Amino acid sequence: MVRGWVQAIRNHKTMSFLVIRDCSGMVQATVDRQNRPDLDSAIASLSIESAVQVEGAVHRNDAVRLGQLEIIPDSIVIHGAADPQLPIQQTSKLDARLDWRFLDLRRPRNRIIFEVQTTAEAAMRTFWRTEGFLEIHSPKLMGSPSESGAELFTVDYFGGKAYLAQSPQFYKQMAMAAGLERVFEIGPVFRADPSFTTRHATEFTSIDMELSWIDSHEDVMRVEERWLQYVVQQVAEAHGPEIQRLFGTAVNIPELPFPRITMDEAQGVLSGLGHVRPPHSRDGDLDPQGEQVLGGYVADRYSHDFVFVTDYDWKVRPFYHMRDASRPSKTKSFDLLWKGLEVTTGAQREHRHATLVRQAQEKGLNLDQIRFYLDFFRFGCPPHGGLGFGLGRMLMSLLGLPNLREVSFLFRGPTRLTP
Amino acid sequence: MVRGWVQAIRNHKTMSFLVIRDCSGMVQATVDRQNRPDLDSAIASLSIESAVQVEGAVHRNDAVRLGQLEIIPDSIVIHGAADPQLPIQQTSKLDARLDWRFLDLRRPRNRIIFEVQTTAEAAMRTFWRTEGFLEIHSPKLMGSPSESGAELFTVDYFGGKAYLAQSPQFYKQMAMAAGLERVFEIGPVFRADPSFTTRHATEFTSIDMELSWIDSHEDVMRVEERWLQYVVQQVAEAHGPEIQRLFGTAVNIPELPFPRITMDEAQGVLSGLGHVRPPHSRDGDLDPQGEQVLGGYVADRYSHDFVFVTDYDWKVRPFYHMRDASRPSKTKSFDLLWKGLEVTTGAQREHRHATLVRQAQEKGLNLDQIRFYLDFFRFGCPPHGGLGFGLGRMLMSLLGLPNLREVSFLFRGPTRLTP
Repeated sequence: MVRGWVQAIRNHKTMSFLVIRDCSGMVQATVDRQNRPDLDSAIASLSIESAVQVEGAVHRNDAVRLGQLEIIPDSIVIHGAADPQLPIQQTSKLDARLDWRFLDLRRPRNRIIFEVQTTAEAAMRTFWRTEGFLEIHSPKLMGSPSESGAELFTVDYFGGKAYLAQSPQFYKQMAMAAGLERVFEIGPVFRADPSFTTRHATEFTSIDMELSWIDSHEDVMRVEERWLQYVVQQVAEAHGPEIQRLFGTAVNIPELPFPRITMDEAQGVLSGLGHVRPPHSRDGDLDPQGEQVLGGYVADRYSHDFVFVTDYDWKVRPFYHMRDASRPSKTKSFDLLWKGLEVTTGAQREHRHATLVRQAQEKGLNLDQIRFYLDFFRFGCPPHGGLGFGLGRMLMSLLGLPNLREVSFLFRGPTRLTP
Repeated sequence: MVRGWVQAIRNHKTMSFLVIRDCSGMVQATVDRQNRPDLDSAIASLSIESAVQVEGAVHRNDAVRLGQLEIIPDSIVIHGAADPQLPIQQTSKLDARLDWRFLDLRRPRNRIIFEVQTTAEAAMRTFWRTEGFLEIHSPKLMGSPSESGAELFTVDYFGGKAYLAQSPQFYKQMAMAAGLERVFEIGPVFRADPSFTTRHATEFTSIDMELSWIDSHEDVMRVEERWLQYVVQQVAEAHGPEIQRLFGTAVNIPELPFPRITMDEAQGVLSGLGHVRPPHSRDGDLDPQGEQVLGGYVADRYSHDFVFVTDYDWKVRPFYHMRDASRPSKTKSFDLLWKGLEVTTGAQREHRHATLVRQAQEKGLNLDQIRFYLDFFRFGCPPHGGLGFGLGRMLMSLLGLPNLREVSFLFRGPTRLTP
C-alpha cells in the first residue's frame, strides 16, 4: 500500500501509468485498462496532486525507471481530489509560490528544509541538555516597550496596550536573576520592520541562550562554537549528501576555534579590500555587503565558514551590553557571521544595577518603562551573557539559499500575512 | 569553588557561617573572624540573596548538618549585592510573588518545575522524531481571524490589522496539505479571554501535533497515549523521587490503553453521581467541576489518571472537526482529562473541501475570512487529525499544583503583563 500524491498520469492505449509520491520517494503504479475497467474509470477522474491510496502487489520490472519496481493495483482510493487547474507551477514567481505555499512545499526539495530544521533543533537541544541548560518559554506579550520603542508591534489588550516581544532578551536575563543559571528558548519574535530585504521578516524564529557565571563574552563564544560544530555535524551526517544533491551546497563541519577578529581589525580589512561603507550605514557597524566581503576574506584566509567579530563600539550596541572596563568605548560583545551572513548577536551583559541604570540613561531610555527589568539586578544577579541566533538564517547558510522566504514555513513581511 | 546565592548568614563571636545555594544544592562556608578580618568585613557588608563566589578548601566536619562538609574560604567575591530588604518572603501572597517572580523562582522547589519541563519536552520530541514527525514553527501573526472572532487579540500592523493566533490549528493542517505528513510544534498561543480561573492565561505554551493518513480520531488517541506514557516515564525516572519529596505527588506511569468513555456515557456517569451542570455551561460539554468528578470516577474504577472522552456533539465542536458519517450529530473528536483536568482537545479533521465549506456555513463563519484556509483542501488533502496539549496544565497534573500561575515562567492574564 502506498499513500501519497499523484505526481504524474500517463494513459496509453492498453495501459495507464501513475506515479505516486510520498515523503519517502516515488513509485509507479501500472494499470491494465481493459482487465480493470473499474480502475480505468477511477483514473479517468483523477487529477495531478490528488491524495490517493493505492493497494496492490509489488513487482520487479526492469523496464520501470523508478527503482525497477511497479505496483499492480488491486484498489485505488481517492481521498482528496485536486482541482484540475493548479494555481502555481514549479517555475512560478516567488510571490505566487508563497500565496500557495502548501503546494510549493510539496516539492521534495522543500521537505528537506524541514528535515534539516528538525535535525538541527534536536542537535541544539541535545547539546544544551548535556550542558545543563533548562528550556524556558518566555512571554511574547509585554506590558511596556522593551529595548527601544522602534520596530515594536502594539496589541489591543482589554482596552489597554501590550507590546509583542522583539526578543526574549529581558526574560532570559530574568532567568539568570532567578538562578536558573543556563537557559535556552526557541520561539517567535516580532519586529515591526518595514524593510523588504531577503534577510528580514516581521516574525521569525529566534534561538536564544543565556548563561551565568561567565568571565567575559569569550565564554559565550566558546559555548556557541562548540554548539554549532555539533549541530552542523549532526546535519551533515543525516542530510549532507542530500543537501549536496538538491542544493549543490557542501555542509562543512567547522573546526574549533572559529576565527575571531575585532571590529577595528575587521574595518581595517574591509578598507584594505577597498570596501566602502554605504551612506546611511552606521559608523562602527558592518553593512550587509561588508559582512559578505569579510566572509569571503575569512574563507580565503582561514578556510572557515564562520567568523566572530568582537569588541563592537558602545555607540552601536544596546544599553545592556557590558563595556570593557579598560576601554569604555568598546563592549564585551560579538556578532557571528556564517558565510558572510550575520546569524548571531551576543555579549556579556551588564549585571551591576548602578552601572546598568547609568548606561540606560546614557542611551536615553525611559527608566520608568524598564523599571521591571532594572529590578532584576537589585537582588543579587550573577555575571552572565548570552546570544540570539536566527533559525532561518542558519537554514539559508546551511542550504545555500539566498532568501529567508524560501526557508520559512510561512513567511511574514510588511505586506504578507496570508496564508 | 562554589558560585551561588547567600541563603543564610550567622555571625557568632569568633566564627561566621554562610550557607551558599546553587542549582545543585547548598553548602556551608565557615569563616574564622579573628584570623581572617578581610573576610569578616566582606561578610559584614553581605546581604541575603547576594550572588557570590567562594573559593577555599573543603573539609569534612561531622558537626555540619549540610552534608557534613564545610568550605574554609580563601576568598569571597560579591558579584551581585542584594538590597538588604527583600520585597517578598516565601509566605507572601501569590500576586506579590508574581510581581517578583525572579525571586520566587529562586526557591529550589520552583527550579524543579523547569527541570521537569525540560525533561518532558525532550521526551516528547524524542518520541516524535522516532515516529517521523517534523518540527514546524507556524506564524503567530495572522491576516484574518481564525476559528472565530471571539477571544482574539488585534495587532496594529503597519496601519492595518493583524491577529494573534489562538492556536496553530490552521497551519498544522496546512502542513498536512503540504504533504509533511506528521508535524509537531511547541509554541505560544494567545487568547483574549477575560477570565481569572486557575486554569486560564491570555498567553500559554501549546503543544501541537498533526498526522496524516488516519482512519479516525482513534488513531490520534493511540499516538497520544503512547506519547504520554513515554513522557511520564522519562519524568518519573529523572525526577520522580524529588517530585514526591517536594510536592508530595506520585508520578504514575500510565498503562495502555487509557480508559475511553463517550460523552454520552460520561454524562450518564455524572448524573448517576448526582453532578449537576452549572447554569450557563454548555449542553453537551463538560464543566470544570464535572471533569473533576469524572476524573475521580475513572481513578476509582480504572485506577488510572487519564481518560479520553470521545464523540462530542457537533454543536459544541469547531467547524473543522469531522462528523461521524452514521451519526451526524456526533464528531470524531475527543478530549483528554488528566486527574480530572482537561489537557487536550483532538479530532479527525474534515479534509473534504465541499463538506468543510458546508460545515463552516452551518456554524455561521464568514467564508471570505477563512478562504485561505479552505483553499488548503482544494488540491488533494489527505485524511488527517491531531491535537493540542497544554504544557502548563501538564505541569499542574504532574506536580499536583492547583494553579497555572505557579508553573508558568511568567504568567500572563487580563491584568498581568509584568514583569
